[in-house]
Amino acid sequence: MQLTPKVKEILSWYESDNPGTKANIARILMEGRLGGTGRMVILPVDQGFEHGPARSFAPNPAAYDPRYHFELAIEAGLNAYAAPLGMIEAGASTFAGAIPTILKVNSSNSLASPEIKDQAVTGGVDDALRLGCSAIGFTIYPSSDDQFEMMEELRELAAEAKAAGLAVVVWSYPRGPTLDKKGETALDICAYAAHIAALMGAHIIKVKPPTSVISLPAAKKVYEQQPVADIDSLAGRIRHVVQACFAGRRLVVFSGGESGTSEAMMDMARGIHKGGGNGSIIGRNTFQRPKQDALRLLADIMDVYKSPAD
Amino acid sequence: MQLTPKVKEILSWYESDNPGTKANIARILMEGRLGGTGRMVILPVDQGFEHGPARSFAPNPAAYDPRYHFELAIEAGLNAYAAPLGMIEAGASTFAGAIPTILKVNSSNSLASPEIKDQAVTGGVDDALRLGCSAIGFTIYPSSDDQFEMMEELRELAAEAKAAGLAVVVWSYPRGPTLDKKGETALDICAYAAHIAALMGAHIIKVKPPTSVISLPAAKKVYEQQPVADIDSLAGRIRHVVQACFAGRRLVVFSGGESGTSEAMMDMARGIHKGGGNGSIIGRNTFQRPKQDALRLLADIMDVYKSPAD
Amino acid sequence: MQLTPKVKEILSWYESDNPGTKANIARILMEGRLGGTGRMVILPVDQGFEHGPARSFAPNPAAYDPRYHFELAIEAGLNAYAAPLGMIEAGASTFAGAIPTILKVNSSNSLASPEIKDQAVTGGVDDALRLGCSAIGFTIYPSSDDQFEMMEELRELAAEAKAAGLAVVVWSYPRGPTLDKKGETALDICAYAAHIAALMGAHIIKVKPPTSVISLPAAKKVYEQQPVADIDSLAGRIRHVVQACFAGRRLVVFSGGESGTSEAMMDMARGIHKGGGNGSIIGRNTFQRPKQDALRLLADIMDVYKSPAD
Amino acid sequence: MQLTPKVKEILSWYESDNPGTKANIARILMEGRLGGTGRMVILPVDQGFEHGPARSFAPNPAAYDPRYHFELAIEAGLNAYAAPLGMIEAGASTFAGAIPTILKVNSSNSLASPEIKDQAVTGGVDDALRLGCSAIGFTIYPSSDDQFEMMEELRELAAEAKAAGLAVVVWSYPRGPTLDKKGETALDICAYAAHIAALMGAHIIKVKPPTSVISLPAAKKVYEQQPVADIDSLAGRIRHVVQACFAGRRLVVFSGGESGTSEAMMDMARGIHKGGGNGSIIGRNTFQRPKQDALRLLADIMDVYKSPAD
Amino acid sequence: MQLTPKVKEILSWYESDNPGTKANIARILMEGRLGGTGRMVILPVDQGFEHGPARSFAPNPAAYDPRYHFELAIEAGLNAYAAPLGMIEAGASTFAGAIPTILKVNSSNSLASPEIKDQAVTGGVDDALRLGCSAIGFTIYPSSDDQFEMMEELRELAAEAKAAGLAVVVWSYPRGPTLDKKGETALDICAYAAHIAALMGAHIIKVKPPTSVISLPAAKKVYEQQPVADIDSLAGRIRHVVQACFAGRRLVVFSGGESGTSEAMMDMARGIHKGGGNGSIIGRNTFQRPKQDALRLLADIMDVYKSPAD
Repeated sequence: MQLTPKVKEILSWYESDNPGTKANIARILMEGRLGGTGRMVILPVDQGFEHGPARSFAPNPAAYDPRYHFELAIEAGLNAYAAPLGMIEAGASTFAGAIPTILKVNSSNSLASPEIKDQAVTGGVDDALRLGCSAIGFTIYPSSDDQFEMMEELRELAAEAKAAGLAVVVWSYPRGPTLDKKGETALDICAYAAHIAALMGAHIIKVKPPTSVISLPAAKKVYEQQPVADIDSLAGRIRHVVQACFAGRRLVVFSGGESGTSEAMMDMARGIHKGGGNGSIIGRNTFQRPKQDALRLLADIMDVYKSPAD
Repeated sequence: MQLTPKVKEILSWYESDNPGTKANIARILMEGRLGGTGRMVILPVDQGFEHGPARSFAPNPAAYDPRYHFELAIEAGLNAYAAPLGMIEAGASTFAGAIPTILKVNSSNSLASPEIKDQAVTGGVDDALRLGCSAIGFTIYPSSDDQFEMMEELRELAAEAKAAGLAVVVWSYPRGPTLDKKGETALDICAYAAHIAALMGAHIIKVKPPTSVISLPAAKKVYEQQPVADIDSLAGRIRHVVQACFAGRRLVVFSGGESGTSEAMMDMARGIHKGGGNGSIIGRNTFQRPKQDALRLLADIMDVYKSPAD
Repeated sequence: MQLTPKVKEILSWYESDNPGTKANIARILMEGRLGGTGRMVILPVDQGFEHGPARSFAPNPAAYDPRYHFELAIEAGLNAYAAPLGMIEAGASTFAGAIPTILKVNSSNSLASPEIKDQAVTGGVDDALRLGCSAIGFTIYPSSDDQFEMMEELRELAAEAKAAGLAVVVWSYPRGPTLDKKGETALDICAYAAHIAALMGAHIIKVKPPTSVISLPAAKKVYEQQPVADIDSLAGRIRHVVQACFAGRRLVVFSGGESGTSEAMMDMARGIHKGGGNGSIIGRNTFQRPKQDALRLLADIMDVYKSPAD
Repeated sequence: MQLTPKVKEILSWYESDNPGTKANIARILMEGRLGGTGRMVILPVDQGFEHGPARSFAPNPAAYDPRYHFELAIEAGLNAYAAPLGMIEAGASTFAGAIPTILKVNSSNSLASPEIKDQAVTGGVDDALRLGCSAIGFTIYPSSDDQFEMMEELRELAAEAKAAGLAVVVWSYPRGPTLDKKGETALDICAYAAHIAALMGAHIIKVKPPTSVISLPAAKKVYEQQPVADIDSLAGRIRHVVQACFAGRRLVVFSGGESGTSEAMMDMARGIHKGGGNGSIIGRNTFQRPKQDALRLLADIMDVYKSPAD
Repeated sequence: MQLTPKVKEILSWYESDNPGTKANIARILMEGRLGGTGRMVILPVDQGFEHGPARSFAPNPAAYDPRYHFELAIEAGLNAYAAPLGMIEAGASTFAGAIPTILKVNSSNSLASPEIKDQAVTGGVDDALRLGCSAIGFTIYPSSDDQFEMMEELRELAAEAKAAGLAVVVWSYPRGPTLDKKGETALDICAYAAHIAALMGAHIIKVKPPTSVISLPAAKKVYEQQPVADIDSLAGRIRHVVQACFAGRRLVVFSGGESGTSEAMMDMARGIHKGGGNGSIIGRNTFQRPKQDALRLLADIMDVYKSPAD
């Protein structure tokens, strides 16, 4: 497989990684309909853990079967499929080599006491290797009272993954006692969360699309003195988050958020694309619809990412 | 031993496991009167730990002797016998090869402060191997404030067990500060608990038979919009739990609950069988009666599971 | 040394242990005046740790010297001597081979805050091996808020000890927030504590002699429906504890309790013997008297255990 | 490269270190415009972690790119560049061998609850080695309720680093419940913090420039009886801190503090130089200005350190 | 070097230790002006950690230099020098072989919250070995809420040290919520603390000189029934502590306490000597005076220990 110049350029950003890790980043970037563009759409299916099976799969019962998600990702021509241990184990052999997989190695659930902002480590690098995964995925909750421990878990798993030639994807979702609901998606907080993931050595960073709120009191003055250009457009806000990812030298993708209309999803993709983000990671908005609807939406979204970013 | 097509099909679900683990799952499925049917009845004897010796064994004092339980399971023609370290050690050599054993590797007790929802790790994979066990058994309490730590213990023991060719059985019993007594057996919670066990990589999942209660406020809307078919029958509820176990691609068995009449036990088995559950795990209701009564009840229950499921 | 039929029978109960462990159990059972009878008297000297040196040794100052206790145990013809690291180190070479030793590997002290029911791990299996010990001894406090952690420490040390061919002696002393003083020696609680030790894989179990109190509310009904025969006699209560130790297939010894008269000690031994207990573990009541008195008392007690149990 | 007599003398202070560690200390001391003088200026860029990307880099957006800081440090002729994992990874290959790097292996952030005075371990000695770093950097917060755990982390990482031939740089920043804001930079506290770092085995110590406040009540009498000479001048206070660093036999550098004017920075350097401090570690005050301004300021500061200290 | 009969006798007490450890105990006992007598004077310099540099060294600024303390100990002809990692590293090569060193491997400081009675582990056995030390030193705080954890740290470090042929010195300083200030130096508590250190396997025990207070309510009756002979003299109280150290079969030394007059120091040494204690461990009272004064005082104290103990 001949890598495109764009993918070669991206790999050059990861200059400290071993060839094994670079090859796995390339596998993700060269896969599917967006292969070679430097843009990605990833299917994540950890909602069963986070929200329970019925809230996740009852709207489209075919999705109770773990094979459904492999098939959806492959048929749609996505870049990668991310899920917890059991979901990957249930199809890793059948679909071996058919799509890069990301083993989500920590997980939370909706039965936990709401004041606990933490996750359990539910998978390991050994699991990722035996299952043929290209990457591990790990969530941190910057601001949580457990954030330092989560970061230390990430640090250990990431070091182990890199040594084994795997890539590291970090979900950086701020939540904790110093943040209200608005703060969790505030622009300064999202950019900060993305930057922390980059500093921790993530290869691919996943954050939520930011609003135009500035939340941290200590940051307000700076944002007044050096205002973010075009803060009222999603593209402008995305551009700021991309900047926080080492001036765009780390791949950053954005979650689709709660379920929305197809048009809303497309608009979001346009903003991410225009702002220089590297793509979308979309779960509920695809697997909760009938497969044909999902394939159509994903095709449309990928078309956005294939168009020239202005 | 020629595996039946049904057992071969079930093994195909565990496509990521090594031959050692597959062989141990097959050993359990091919054992006893239900051997080869894909249905199982398992004898668990951890009540001594959970409730103390007199509450467990005084009604049938022969059961104070650990050998009694091996004999009961073997004579009844069950699929497996599960117990904590000391119980297994006390008969593993005498009954070596006579019945698959499951080493229960964590345990709680009734002397603990009631607000502590946790268990102690009381056995390990090395113990399971030296004692010739086919599987380890581990309890998680989803919703407990210690749930993440319990899951991390499970993740480590399960990874070690799988690498050593053992199977992993998970008791998934929701309890914790966000759940009242009704919630612990609510349908949505049981299905969620079973799904979490599947996501953690369990080969066999043990949950309680669910009631028709829906407990989690966030789940109610989904259950209204996508109602569970036949929710008022046990079979309908079992079917929902089976669905939550990867659309039936993970083995799930149901505990017998508190002591009941033989007829109640039979009805429960009928519901489990009809709903597509893989069997029963029955302790107190067998070893607390005279052995001949227990053998008769177990034979009757296994007859239910041998009949065609409509 | 030719093992007696009784000792051979006892060893057969430990069918899952390796020959090294069996040999060490045999060494303890074949030692001293009760050698070969299946009964034991053990000298434990951890009171210095638990209560301090003066409360332990001032009544008989010769006992400040660790060599005193080796000599007392050897001269009396006891089965074993149990003590913490420093006490064993101080005589292990001089008395090498002269008496089986049990390294007590965790310890508490009277300076701790009274609400903390825990012990520090103060010795290890490596220590036991280099010092030529036959067993490790470990205390658990069932019901304590630290009980699960203590059990996990025991599980790790016991696994290591068994792999190294050592025996495991468990002091199972219930104490914690759900138990009042009466509960700690209640019959149901003592039997439960002994059963937990058996389930954890102990070879020799040490509990306190039970009173006729039934403490756990949930257990009361069972004890009413299946009353313990002869509950008003110590022998009857001992018999119930023995039953809880795998129907007598685990060795169980009883502590002497607080200092009492010689006659009281003899009566207790008679009850233990008659009830099928395997012996006494007596500290303060021996080393706090002049050596000749202690030797006489121990001889008398051993005579009880040498008489036929009716 | 011929070491200067001054550097040879400094290396002689580290008489217990292996040649690998001595070589790395020498690499830092021999690098750049101050090479060989025993004085150092180091560029630290951990503000992105501590304060977020915008507060750190928006004033000079070129600094969002990790390569900028390598270039700044190299062009200015500094002694070393210190940053967290992601920042070093992003340039370690491009700038391999061009400047000694210090991997900052723990980090805090501004999203943490303010009462938590701790950091997450975010890098390791293996990372430092694979990235070609000369040293690891670690922050301790003496007085924090987590200080003992932080020190234990440092102790383990430092032992590992020294065994691997790396140098150890300790940021010693007092903060915690017994210190008010004034106390954190009080002279007695700064000297104490520097001394603790020296006792922990640091090769290079980083503290804040002290004020003339004496904060610890127990220390006041001593400071009255043995007053610090020239306490009202920065040089006098620096001299006291240097004394606390093993009478000047450990390298100690001072942070630039919050952003100030160039003249203020120069004055601070003059005080440090005059007081016998080994240099400055300046972040925000350089990378938040245009590069040419920063280079000029750094050149001026280094000129101060090249002048004879009176 | 020919060991004296006294030292040979002392070594015989440590009958379970390997020749490496015995050699290191002998090195300490044979060193300096008291070499061969079985008495010791040790210089400990951990006050910089405990109280800060100025409170420790400002009264005699030469003492800021770590080499000063090596020289003081060597010139005075002491038995050993004890200090934390950084202090030992700063002179271990220059003074290699000139005096036995004890690496203090845990440390506290005065910036900690007063209710925290704990220390950080700041050195390890590997450090002690690479620095040529003869022993490790470790502080436990019996009665502290962290005491069990401290004891577990000691147990691990001591086991490792003994396996490596090092000696183990334990500072046993009772403090915690159940003890008031008077209790910390009460006779029963000091004897208890010394006994705990002996039980933990210490070779050399360091406690504070006891007062005649009896603090533990449970101990009062025993001390009334078996009164300590000559409790009103220091010698009488020392004799009781020596008795608690395995009837004098463990070396026990006493700290000098807060700074006092030379005559007070001499009196204390006389009491220790007369009571059978093995010597003094004196820090502040020596290094806070001019070196010649300190040498004179130390010579005088050692003369006390060289005189016949009556």
